Amino acid sequence: MSDTPWFYENFEHTGSAIGFRIVRKLDEVQSPFQKIEIFETTDFGNLMVIDGAMMVTTRENFFYHEMMSHAAIYTHAAPKDIAIIGGGDCGTLRECLKHADVRSVVQCDIDEQVTRMAEKYFPELCESNNDPRATVMFDDGIAYMRNAAPESLDIIIVDSTDPVGPAEGLFNRAFYEDCFKALRPDGLLVQQSESPLALMHLIQDMVGAMGDAGFQSFRTLPFPQPCYPTGWWSCTIAGKQARDLAKFRLPDAAAKPFRTEYYNAGMHVAALAQPEFMKRALQQTR
Amino acid sequence: MSDTPWFYENFEHTGSAIGFRIVRKLDEVQSPFQKIEIFETTDFGNLMVIDGAMMVTTRENFFYHEMMSHAAIYTHAAPKDIAIIGGGDCGTLRECLKHADVRSVVQCDIDEQVTRMAEKYFPELCESNNDPRATVMFDDGIAYMRNAAPESLDIIIVDSTDPVGPAEGLFNRAFYEDCFKALRPDGLLVQQSESPLALMHLIQDMVGAMGDAGFQSFRTLPFPQPCYPTGWWSCTIAGKQARDLAKFRLPDAAAKPFRTEYYNAGMHVAALAQPEFMKRALQQTR
Repeated sequence: MSDTPWFYENFEHTGSAIGFRIVRKLDEVQSPFQKIEIFETTDFGNLMVIDGAMMVTTRENFFYHEMMSHAAIYTHAAPKDIAIIGGGDCGTLRECLKHADVRSVVQCDIDEQVTRMAEKYFPELCESNNDPRATVMFDDGIAYMRNAAPESLDIIIVDSTDPVGPAEGLFNRAFYEDCFKALRPDGLLVQQSESPLALMHLIQDMVGAMGDAGFQSFRTLPFPQPCYPTGWWSCTIAGKQARDLAKFRLPDAAAKPFRTEYYNAGMHVAALAQPEFMKRALQQTR
Repeated sequence: MSDTPWFYENFEHTGSAIGFRIVRKLDEVQSPFQKIEIFETTDFGNLMVIDGAMMVTTRENFFYHEMMSHAAIYTHAAPKDIAIIGGGDCGTLRECLKHADVRSVVQCDIDEQVTRMAEKYFPELCESNNDPRATVMFDDGIAYMRNAAPESLDIIIVDSTDPVGPAEGLFNRAFYEDCFKALRPDGLLVQQSESPLALMHLIQDMVGAMGDAGFQSFRTLPFPQPCYPTGWWSCTIAGKQARDLAKFRLPDAAAKPFRTEYYNAGMHVAALAQPEFMKRALQQTR
């Protein structure tokens, strides 16, 4: 830890930075895959940083975890079996398991140390890890998806780091083809899709590769996420079938029997609206 | 300019920071009110900083300016006369003047140097300054509103810096009472209302003071704004009458004859949806 009380992450490819005021560094571990650091911040609780990139804070991880899970789950008619690729902090797993009708959730992160650190410094994100419906495994998500039984999953959530380093193979046609095969006919793929302001070209490329792999319908949902570049993020949902991904189980979402901080039926509708510049950019893709 | 190629703003009261990668400092002026700096960034165009606080960048000011103007204008049945208090960069003025039915817009900023710098480094924001419907004046917005003719305005937009320093007097009951008097019976007050994540208590206090001044209806609309704390911002619309501020001229907004980057009818609806934590917090106010 330097002598400044602020920790900054400079996003070189977007030319923008985010920072938090730090009380102290709590922990650091070099796993076989990446360096994981934990800081205590003055205002945002604990902060996990992987290879210099902010992953989660205690106070504001809810935007991301809720939008990565509930939006797709309520877009699917009756999801039973879910796989999370990445997601080692277990926050997405926790959100998925809030749905009583979900039968199984496998979380496959390559790096066990991420989960060990989450258990210690973000215990609230791990509170459902022992749910009998949960399987927390540590393995290569690309291989896991390559070997998954055909038509065995309803939703695949790719909750990964940026498309560089260990996560690079989670953003291409070969991986999407394996996801396509593993999904049931009405299955959905969800992927974190970076900042719509800074990285619209990445969303365009991702949707293009998903389409090449056979996916028929696409929808990018923006949401705030203060600890990520520009403070504005998105997830992209892809459907195996041609369908309107703006249609979701609104009455179920409106009557959700669990507590959230951001997600509700109205915010789901809100995330389906597209700013003018996104409309123009995404019209250029299929 | 320091030897780092990054400019950071540390938001001391929120414990978070935003930064941009800088090519060079283009200009600096100390006005009678504040220090204004202009930087060239690598990815976000030019950046205006006032007393160390980021105000606008070329690339992403559209979120704020469009939401501060079009949302209220389409919420009013037929706005003719608008006053902007602050707004010296002229971006909100430009957006207001995109509405052909608007008859007059007075912009009253205390600091002429802000507008002079905007003319030089953000000329696109100033392109409507010579519109015959525009009056660009430099004076104390508090005094201007105190002396405004009763029931002479349809919309007042408070496009100010944070509630410290010169703008402090724009966030209290006395100022809101002057606004209340200056508005016609169906008039609307719009104020930038900081980050819903970091500063919900400020929104609660503001709505409380607006209510004490006589305003009857309130609505806080969140939107992304990467250069402001947490990257997530809001405007609060207050109505002189008791009315549903979620009702707006949706068909007009959907058929808007001018170009925007963020605002459209769908994004207006989206901004009216409230995250769970905001619903809970704002239920506590009137």
